[in-house]
Amino acid sequence: MKRVMLTVAYDGTRYNGWQVQPNGVTIEGELNSALTEFLGEEIRVSGASRTDAGVHALCNLAVFDTNARMPGEKMSYALNQRLPEDIKVLCSQEVPPAFHPRKCESRKTYVYRIYVAPFPNPLERTYALFTYVPLDVDAMKAAAAQFVGEHDFTSFSTSKPEITSSVRTVTMCEITEVEKPFGNMIEIRVQGNGFLYNMVRIMVGTLMEVGRGNLEAEAIAAIFEQKDRAVAGPTAPACGLMLENYTFFGENPVKIY
Amino acid sequence: MKRVMLTVAYDGTRYNGWQVQPNGVTIEGELNSALTEFLGEEIRVSGASRTDAGVHALCNLAVFDTNARMPGEKMSYALNQRLPEDIKVLCSQEVPPAFHPRKCESRKTYVYRIYVAPFPNPLERTYALFTYVPLDVDAMKAAAAQFVGEHDFTSFSTSKPEITSSVRTVTMCEITEVEKPFGNMIEIRVQGNGFLYNMVRIMVGTLMEVGRGNLEAEAIAAIFEQKDRAVAGPTAPACGLMLENYTFFGENPVKIY
Repeated sequence: MKRVMLTVAYDGTRYNGWQVQPNGVTIEGELNSALTEFLGEEIRVSGASRTDAGVHALCNLAVFDTNARMPGEKMSYALNQRLPEDIKVLCSQEVPPAFHPRKCESRKTYVYRIYVAPFPNPLERTYALFTYVPLDVDAMKAAAAQFVGEHDFTSFSTSKPEITSSVRTVTMCEITEVEKPFGNMIEIRVQGNGFLYNMVRIMVGTLMEVGRGNLEAEAIAAIFEQKDRAVAGPTAPACGLMLENYTFFGENPVKIY
Repeated sequence: MKRVMLTVAYDGTRYNGWQVQPNGVTIEGELNSALTEFLGEEIRVSGASRTDAGVHALCNLAVFDTNARMPGEKMSYALNQRLPEDIKVLCSQEVPPAFHPRKCESRKTYVYRIYVAPFPNPLERTYALFTYVPLDVDAMKAAAAQFVGEHDFTSFSTSKPEITSSVRTVTMCEITEVEKPFGNMIEIRVQGNGFLYNMVRIMVGTLMEVGRGNLEAEAIAAIFEQKDRAVAGPTAPACGLMLENYTFFGENPVKIY
């Protein structure tokens, strides 16, 4: 028996999220089917991040145990033959039997992309949220800085009863704006040790309210204090969000790529 | 009667090219339908570049004449409501009645993107050609430089009987390579005063042969001399190609954006 870790990239557009569900096609379900068929034994992967419907990933992680004799490093080739074009394994590797990305000291990076222009651009439609409303990026940057640090993110999450603590540490929240021929691309990059349900999308929705002038950049501290989802901004749409990277710390950290 | 010019962006993936055809959905056909419905008169646009099936554009141009009283500058709003999400008008403007982009002194820029990595990346699958074969980018750059200037491009075109001259001037052929997390993105940018049928894709196919070591960088001059399509490389697939930009010269040049 050995444990194999997959680095999985996907275009989430046509999926009902990561996690296997009674209805709808999911990333996890597609991986389970491809692995079970390919290895000839029932495989159930365990993912690092249960991304929502429509969210993309350049780098999600999944581990599974197998009796296969084939080296884990070779599995990505055969696996990619069996996966649809919008899900691919970019790396497969053997990891220690007890290793699980969710049990490691790690940092995850998400990026949210917003395309601001008078008209939507077909070439930017799949991996960015389009808005024609101008955004004050300097105000958004001032607000973003207030997310960094250890906070109770209750106001920035959709409650899930099983969660015991809403305290998370955001190690980075940076905004860049790149001029494109017919509009601007704003990227909001958020890194942290863990994220509550919908946390990045609510942070982004709140930053957009600041960008539109509906909320002061200084309001973030008060929103944290109120511990009330209703006082933060709306949940930004899934299409703009991408899980971009993982970094592991501690002894024998596993390298992703 | 006035003449309106549209700047049109599209994801060419699901289209049978620009030009209206008996079978298959085309960009031109979609524009004609949307304009005819919206303006209430039969409209037939005339395009600047008849891009092939599967080729993308950030900036193709189309002109049409109309009796509509609405200012041309306002038409893009209503038009975009009627266009599918993979075709959008990024700018509409009134131009002189005799103006046609194909009759102007102009330069067109195409970009061809090649994603080189061990595995295809779902997030790069729509607007780039994937290859796992490493490419020698320095050799490709040396070959690319030989395309610049006035040449008879017969060897780099699929013959079309109606063409009278195969002499074209390439004003730029530049290659950049950007490192991405799981692979490299190579961009081949070609600018010129006009292009023969399949010319950019055959230039790219030939540059890839150089990158793979199947052809010497110095061979380009001999391929020009032989005036024979068979001695150049294969036609690179449509998915990697995008019409990126137009520039007009001369008196009262029309500004694209």
